[in-house]
Amino acid sequence: MLNLASTTAGSWLDRALADFDAILLDHAHCERKAAGTALKLLFQYPDRPFLQAPVAELAREELAHFKLVLARLETRGVAFGRQRPSAYAGRLKALVRDGEPHRLVDLLLISALIEARSCERFQLLAAHHPEAAFRDFYAGLHAAEARHHGLYLQLAEGVSTEAQVRARLAQLARDEAEIIAEGNDPVRLHS
Amino acid sequence: MLNLASTTAGSWLDRALADFDAILLDHAHCERKAAGTALKLLFQYPDRPFLQAPVAELAREELAHFKLVLARLETRGVAFGRQRPSAYAGRLKALVRDGEPHRLVDLLLISALIEARSCERFQLLAAHHPEAAFRDFYAGLHAAEARHHGLYLQLAEGVSTEAQVRARLAQLARDEAEIIAEGNDPVRLHS
Repeated sequence: MLNLASTTAGSWLDRALADFDAILLDHAHCERKAAGTALKLLFQYPDRPFLQAPVAELAREELAHFKLVLARLETRGVAFGRQRPSAYAGRLKALVRDGEPHRLVDLLLISALIEARSCERFQLLAAHHPEAAFRDFYAGLHAAEARHHGLYLQLAEGVSTEAQVRARLAQLARDEAEIIAEGNDPVRLHS
Repeated sequence: MLNLASTTAGSWLDRALADFDAILLDHAHCERKAAGTALKLLFQYPDRPFLQAPVAELAREELAHFKLVLARLETRGVAFGRQRPSAYAGRLKALVRDGEPHRLVDLLLISALIEARSCERFQLLAAHHPEAAFRDFYAGLHAAEARHHGLYLQLAEGVSTEAQVRARLAQLARDEAEIIAEGNDPVRLHS
């Protein structure tokens, strides 16, 4: 359902739980970046009216999650601030093709894959976090990420044909799996 | 209460009502831009944790208003799309001083003034729009703009002293009044 080409290795979960404050801080940044990416799409494509309302609503949800993660950071006494991000999103964005509608299709599909990977990892945290409050927290969030994945995919299918979108999604999913397999040091949500 | 240094001339209202579709389309762009400006602030100042949650919530509200204006455009059969903006926001942003905390104070105060001018004009539209549905619509929005004005002001006072913020606000309000007095052709929300 998530269209990912790989499953997260158990070693990621061990590392994430061993440095969970870093994961939570990265998570806050990721929610804010997801809202920023959504808004940028709206600015860059005013001539695609069908994007506007659904992507604005998605950005609102990302910002609501950002606030939820900020509150969790505060509870844990972790100060919000700068953090070196993983190379993941930048490497995916380098795969975007030039020329329309390819560029827009790729931007939508890459957002779809990032949401899918977040969703997969939130499911792991929902199942294995040692604290019940965090298991519930991630169980609550993972459904939203799955919904966002589906929305981005559906929007991409409004820009190109379903067959072309599916073929490109399969390619980008393989690329995403390679990038994620390389890992990242220190540990991050997408590493 | 809104800290503006001038009152909108009646001629603006006449022009706005004579080309109301253009005003409504500009309004949609303004709500989206307000959300974008808020988010940019969060990206640029991760080291100012006190900004994060309130400005994220403000961006969520701007996006909710964006969606409301999109729905009104649709009802009127006006397609959402590109539109030449007024020079207003760009001219205000050119007044931002270099160096911290001046830059952040100015960014917050300029956002406060833009919200104040929107609020003032929404009050005019709430009082004088020929359609009751739009009078209600702007009456509903103007309270939010006044609240956003107050929030930006309060945040600026958290960055510098109240006396310095008030002095700078008075100067920027005079500048804003000069810019708005020059007008803009064609008519826009801030022209």
